[in-house]
Amino acid sequence: IAKEVAKLLELKAQLGEDEGKHKFVLKTPKGTRDYGPKQMAIRERVFNAIISCFKRHGAEVIDTPVFELKETLTGKYGEDSKLIYDLKDQGGELLSLRYDLTVPFARYLAMNKITNIKRYHIAKVYRRDNPAMTRGRYREFYQCDFDIAGQFDPMIPDAECLKIVHEILSDLQLGDFVVKVNDRRILDGMFAVCGVPDSKFRTICSSVDKLDKVPWEEVRSEMVGEKGLSPEAADRIGEYVQLHGGLDLIEQLLQDPKLSQNKLAKEGLGDMKLLFEYLTLFGITGKISFDLSLARGLDYYTGVIFEAVLLHQENEHVEEPLSVGSVAGGGRYDGLVGMFDPKGRKVPCVGVSIGIERIFSILEQRLEASEEKIRTTETQVLVASAQKKLLEERLKLISELWDAGIKAEMLYKKNPKLLNQLQYCEETGIPLVAIVGEQELKDGVVKLRIVATREEVNVRRESLVEEIRIRTSQC
Amino acid sequence: IAKEVAKLLELKAQLGEDEGKHKFVLKTPKGTRDYGPKQMAIRERVFNAIISCFKRHGAEVIDTPVFELKETLTGKYGEDSKLIYDLKDQGGELLSLRYDLTVPFARYLAMNKITNIKRYHIAKVYRRDNPAMTRGRYREFYQCDFDIAGQFDPMIPDAECLKIVHEILSDLQLGDFVVKVNDRRILDGMFAVCGVPDSKFRTICSSVDKLDKVPWEEVRSEMVGEKGLSPEAADRIGEYVQLHGGLDLIEQLLQDPKLSQNKLAKEGLGDMKLLFEYLTLFGITGKISFDLSLARGLDYYTGVIFEAVLLHQENEHVEEPLSVGSVAGGGRYDGLVGMFDPKGRKVPCVGVSIGIERIFSILEQRLEASEEKIRTTETQVLVASAQKKLLEERLKLISELWDAGIKAEMLYKKNPKLLNQLQYCEETGIPLVAIVGEQELKDGVVKLRIVATREEVNVRRESLVEEIRIRTSQC
Repeated sequence: IAKEVAKLLELKAQLGEDEGKHKFVLKTPKGTRDYGPKQMAIRERVFNAIISCFKRHGAEVIDTPVFELKETLTGKYGEDSKLIYDLKDQGGELLSLRYDLTVPFARYLAMNKITNIKRYHIAKVYRRDNPAMTRGRYREFYQCDFDIAGQFDPMIPDAECLKIVHEILSDLQLGDFVVKVNDRRILDGMFAVCGVPDSKFRTICSSVDKLDKVPWEEVRSEMVGEKGLSPEAADRIGEYVQLHGGLDLIEQLLQDPKLSQNKLAKEGLGDMKLLFEYLTLFGITGKISFDLSLARGLDYYTGVIFEAVLLHQENEHVEEPLSVGSVAGGGRYDGLVGMFDPKGRKVPCVGVSIGIERIFSILEQRLEASEEKIRTTETQVLVASAQKKLLEERLKLISELWDAGIKAEMLYKKNPKLLNQLQYCEETGIPLVAIVGEQELKDGVVKLRIVATREEVNVRRESLVEEIRIRTSQC
Repeated sequence: IAKEVAKLLELKAQLGEDEGKHKFVLKTPKGTRDYGPKQMAIRERVFNAIISCFKRHGAEVIDTPVFELKETLTGKYGEDSKLIYDLKDQGGELLSLRYDLTVPFARYLAMNKITNIKRYHIAKVYRRDNPAMTRGRYREFYQCDFDIAGQFDPMIPDAECLKIVHEILSDLQLGDFVVKVNDRRILDGMFAVCGVPDSKFRTICSSVDKLDKVPWEEVRSEMVGEKGLSPEAADRIGEYVQLHGGLDLIEQLLQDPKLSQNKLAKEGLGDMKLLFEYLTLFGITGKISFDLSLARGLDYYTGVIFEAVLLHQENEHVEEPLSVGSVAGGGRYDGLVGMFDPKGRKVPCVGVSIGIERIFSILEQRLEASEEKIRTTETQVLVASAQKKLLEERLKLISELWDAGIKAEMLYKKNPKLLNQLQYCEETGIPLVAIVGEQELKDGVVKLRIVATREEVNVRRESLVEEIRIRTSQC
């Protein structure tokens, strides 16, 4: 028996090996996804809305490499630096994948000694974060950034960034939203008057940053327990961070006996007032909320910061509405370019980043629920044949159409059935079929079939291009 | 003295440290570059030409992550595998940056069980190659891929790929070009009849691949010296690889006493004949050359292979014309998807990849030589003021324009000089200026200035949007 078992085990091992030959793990890396044609159609709609807004505001466009020298990214992201993807040392320079588009932008400005530019940049960034893909949180994701660099009068570029967020979120019809606004100087001033030691500003700031996800009690115990802040200081912070409002709140805080004595806070509140005046002229204050709990984790912000949040989802027929949260954010970072300049010359910057993966998630789910059919090609006409042995005629005709700029397809079969050709049009939404047949060839015409109505007309070969153009001009 | 020197050295060290504070190496990683607004303008022109061709041929679009599981790329690229960028092991999966778009496409097909698709994919790929950036050879570069996957009648999709190369290179007006075509089966048959042992096919193939860069004598000595091929076999190969031509050559080789006895070669030559017949129907054989020296290094090709080469540069006023070489390539890879499928199910594929960095290099150089001015924004109108204290009025007006979809800018100054505002338009090519002044505000009009002619007209505020649209309708 032992012998037989051994034999069987051996056989099994052999089988296992053969199977193993093709045993790939067939997946994309953790936290990443493919975009199929349908997803791409949604993605391009979103990109078009965003790009046309950026262009409406006069932005140029740039691009930078997907990786940077490791040292370029060092010391820019505070506690989040641990999430940077490093490349393997294969000899040569040490490289990291970009974590955002802001630091590469600052490096670009310093390297090219540019002191004045308004640009957008749409590209993927990489974070070794805990992915939550159904909610649109990925390790590889697009950022759509618009930034204004240069020495200008206060709050004018800052107000434009908020106008842009407002335009894009309105245009995409994602439902109600609010843009929370704060200022690093107000935060720092608040920490100072609450009795937070200077050395703890950044770490307490990143605790406050969690307030959109966890309740105050938890944040407070992190401040006191983990970070060693006095309970009194934490409670004073707790009073401030529950405040949010508009011009009224700004006026109130400008009168606040403690805050108004702090130089930084006063500066920040003065600018916040100016910002709200400009936003009033833009007519968008209805969706802007000055919110003292907004902190934003990144180290490099120096002035205004903001973050746009979707309030709830519009399409109520979706059973479990996605909790999405932040879809855009940004702020002022006047010191970042100077960190790269050999002489430390500063270039003041302010910018906004639209996070589109979350927006995709919503639109994708909405599309699925609606059962709307979206075309994934733009083909105007299928070149078909009604009889056999007409491959060469089809090739000749389609070549003429391509050369005339017509979007045309054909089935890659020698003798396809007419039914299959018509079915292909139905499936893919091609509106016209150009049918070549022996009689038509003799008569110098092509039969043009309108898929939607099943109408068929004979069109002289030399008028075919024009006829197709007219009949698809709405596309 | 020693004491003084020590003191000075100490001082120097301190100075050095202070300097060091900002001593970043301010560069992009080796073999990569930034794209500034002007380069992006060229890039978008090229992309538009390529994308509109791909869409004309009915392709859908997909996207995949920039990195793949390391094992996904293993064993696909032959000798070039050493050029793959690996990511650092930071815990979790082992990842590599994609080396091309073909292997991720095959992984995508197998993973989603897709057996039939025509798609394009435009994205960056990564190779740790020796960069030669002035000639458009980078470590990070774009590939624009079009592929047809599915079981079809022979050579119809293959012919379309060549038609696409022909359309794109003609459209971009890069000067004269030739598309070299060969077939892996003809190459393998040729190796067999020349007496190359089976085990040496791939390595001898990659020697042949160097023939576009180095003379035959050098390739021969690599075959014989390094790779241990018999001198007689090498000489027999030498006779074949100097052959190139069209249908005549195919007919001649079909009669070749040795090749015609080889099953693989005969199959390849039969298909090559069919391909040339289809290309004749497309009217493009004038730029296609059946060339027995074309090998292409990648392991995964199984049938037709091709490569497009620019013959010389058109603009003769450039002193040192760039030597560019290959700008597009591709071929048939019927086995690649099967390598990913758990059951080894094959999906036949053929595709083309346009390498645009080289094309950019040419167009960039040409643009510099021509001194043509290209706009990097699309702004239609600058909102300006003739007097001080009109910032609020400018903000109100520009907000109205943005909301109406007009591309508008303003200077971010409280009280900019009119001259500076007009100069900004001259520099950036903005065609119109909408000037608000006290008198105009009273009269309910805006003064619209046409930058090119310096003409100025008063336009009623409610007609301004329409007037701007009419005057910039050609944009």
